[in-house]
Amino acid sequence: MSFVESIIRKREGEALTREEIHDFVVGAGRETLPPEQLAAMLMAICCRGMNDHETRLLTEQMVRSGEEWEIAAARPTAVDKHSTGGVGDTVSLVLAPLLAACGVPVAMMAGRGLGHSQGTLDKLEAVPGFRCDWNRDEALDLMDSCGVAFMAQSERIAPADRTLYALRDITGTVPSLPLIVSSIMSKKLALGVGTLVLDVKWGRGAFRPTLALARELASALRSVARGMGVTTEAFLTDMNQPLGPALGTACEVRAARDVLDAGGGADLRAVSVRLAQEAMVLRGWSAEQARDELESSLTSGRALAAWDRLVEAHGGEPDPERWPVPAQTHEIVAIESGWVMEVAADTLGWVAAEIGAGRRSREEGLDHGAGILVHARIGDRLEPGQPLATVLMGDREIDVNAIEERVRGSFQIGSDRVSPPQLILGTVDEIAEEGLGTRD
Amino acid sequence: MSFVESIIRKREGEALTREEIHDFVVGAGRETLPPEQLAAMLMAICCRGMNDHETRLLTEQMVRSGEEWEIAAARPTAVDKHSTGGVGDTVSLVLAPLLAACGVPVAMMAGRGLGHSQGTLDKLEAVPGFRCDWNRDEALDLMDSCGVAFMAQSERIAPADRTLYALRDITGTVPSLPLIVSSIMSKKLALGVGTLVLDVKWGRGAFRPTLALARELASALRSVARGMGVTTEAFLTDMNQPLGPALGTACEVRAARDVLDAGGGADLRAVSVRLAQEAMVLRGWSAEQARDELESSLTSGRALAAWDRLVEAHGGEPDPERWPVPAQTHEIVAIESGWVMEVAADTLGWVAAEIGAGRRSREEGLDHGAGILVHARIGDRLEPGQPLATVLMGDREIDVNAIEERVRGSFQIGSDRVSPPQLILGTVDEIAEEGLGTRD
Repeated sequence: MSFVESIIRKREGEALTREEIHDFVVGAGRETLPPEQLAAMLMAICCRGMNDHETRLLTEQMVRSGEEWEIAAARPTAVDKHSTGGVGDTVSLVLAPLLAACGVPVAMMAGRGLGHSQGTLDKLEAVPGFRCDWNRDEALDLMDSCGVAFMAQSERIAPADRTLYALRDITGTVPSLPLIVSSIMSKKLALGVGTLVLDVKWGRGAFRPTLALARELASALRSVARGMGVTTEAFLTDMNQPLGPALGTACEVRAARDVLDAGGGADLRAVSVRLAQEAMVLRGWSAEQARDELESSLTSGRALAAWDRLVEAHGGEPDPERWPVPAQTHEIVAIESGWVMEVAADTLGWVAAEIGAGRRSREEGLDHGAGILVHARIGDRLEPGQPLATVLMGDREIDVNAIEERVRGSFQIGSDRVSPPQLILGTVDEIAEEGLGTRD
Repeated sequence: MSFVESIIRKREGEALTREEIHDFVVGAGRETLPPEQLAAMLMAICCRGMNDHETRLLTEQMVRSGEEWEIAAARPTAVDKHSTGGVGDTVSLVLAPLLAACGVPVAMMAGRGLGHSQGTLDKLEAVPGFRCDWNRDEALDLMDSCGVAFMAQSERIAPADRTLYALRDITGTVPSLPLIVSSIMSKKLALGVGTLVLDVKWGRGAFRPTLALARELASALRSVARGMGVTTEAFLTDMNQPLGPALGTACEVRAARDVLDAGGGADLRAVSVRLAQEAMVLRGWSAEQARDELESSLTSGRALAAWDRLVEAHGGEPDPERWPVPAQTHEIVAIESGWVMEVAADTLGWVAAEIGAGRRSREEGLDHGAGILVHARIGDRLEPGQPLATVLMGDREIDVNAIEERVRGSFQIGSDRVSPPQLILGTVDEIAEEGLGTRD
């Protein structure tokens, strides 16, 4: 059967066979199918969808399009964590050393950021000397020496996903559930860690903004992972306001280190601990034991020590005094009193990208000194003069007044008291479907 | 607005604006948009459709992407005819001289065939010396000297359609109503003849096989043409069996000449006369006058004389003795008695292409000696030994037994008497929607 016949079958809403999905993925990975045919298939999938079986087949074939590291075969107790991406989401940098401090090895593939959210790889590279370009043997050695291996996404892992991901961006075919699920899971499954915790974000800073969409994604991701033999749990967490107190690269690493040093942002800390706890539960700990162990590693300094060990093992400079700093800072304060009703995570993320702390396009370079510190959170009471945010300026020429206006506009202050949003909504099973409507 | 945003809007089922459609068509015509983005937009249009207004805007922009000949401005009485394509559809070659003989000038853009139906340009080129590569002034001169101008589709007419047409073929986006309508009508409207008769085929040899689909197409084509100021009527005619007695190039020209010489296939004659009559009615004749004039031009020899004039004016050899002939012929006869229940137009069309009378791919050359003559029609009573078809063999090496088997298999013979299918169903208005179900 020719590929155009497969496109036509999908256009008509039919389910693709294993062989058709194989031809699609191999053609994408080896670039033997022309991009216009791949684009047409992607749009047909966007419009007509794929059933669970097709999604699993697509993911499987994408895994097989490249190297498979099978970490679980070498280090069966290792865990992996994935977030669908958010603003100020510094969880990976907290969770990895935290688990390492509790004796649970972590292997994580780190990617670059695009648009309004930053990537873990970008953040780690803000630390002078930090390297992520390890091969499998080096990654296993890292896990043995410091408990954590952070790896840059290799071109040899799921190459079909690289082709399709780039195409989706320019063809308007990004928000399709089977395409999202197969893209995320193919990279996870190619790494092949045996235990996985998923953090699916919902809210205005997330790429699936409604709770219903986020829940659908969480359920689909978990289902594919479990179907391929990975012990998996999926949480839904809030991304209506930035999670951590910092947006950027070096400033987010500092925010992570602050949590590990028994301080830092309470919400960032809470989500990191909850996801780390779940990873340990999936590895056989009781919830209570896991919680106690995590808390004690934070208060005892063991977590911070684990952080220093992992930075050094990855070739990085552990002394935060030597990390990039802003050229200058600009504090923005409240001019009226009231309750913080909204903190627009998406707008702040885009502003951060604009001042150099993120990428507006794939080609753009980063300024590790740039970023935004967020001081006020939903539910806070503010008086005039109290700080809303601090803009960390790098070397890029910026219009400070315009930036201040947009940052200030991201904070909505009202006269009625509001409660902070629920931070951790629970696992996908814990969230009743009927409760979704009100939050959408 | 970037083009990817337009793709996303169409993917979400929204109507595109004039500006968005302009950017799409200009980007296709000048090839400034990458093919993968065009392909994604084509598939989104396929899946989500376009409303009447969008379809008209798309057609308009495609017309404007190239030269506009405005024939009506120079020759206001000229008529054009378009068929959606069928097997043994030799109508253009009969209708043009027939109308010329009645004093009605004809201007027609002739295209190449692909797949199971042959193109008028291919057929005309079977006549030695026949040229169609005329510019506008030459076409007007031809209309003045012989009453007919046949023109090859120029690259300068609707270039955006050329790009999109080629893309649709390989991206599985052919059968979308707005794309079909804009493709057909952009070429007609760029030529700019003031009166147009549309012959929309339905049945197994047509590309919109059900009557409902054909009627939908006829209605949409007529609506766009009328909306752009062209006096237009659209007929639905049968394409369940080949229309004329010949499938190929030279043999179809002979079949047309036979009709003009007061003989030939009755169905081919009937459709040609009915469409020519409608063209005259649209130009102000009464139906009866038009009919009488057409019949008399056929019986008097005026139509044949008009044919000879047009062939000579186009540089062609009028003597049919000097036209290409088959290297050998192979007659296939009935082996059982019974009534002809089906004559598979599509299969016969594909067999004709295989033996060289058509193109299976765009690159393939044609053999003007090759073709198939069809002797039996639905409703005919056959006895063993009576002819079903004659295979006209060109220079291509063919497996005669395999061809005979497929040609024979195209004729279904039964023991019950059947009526011939209704040949001319009428104009799109004459066909009641409720009657469509039974024929689909």
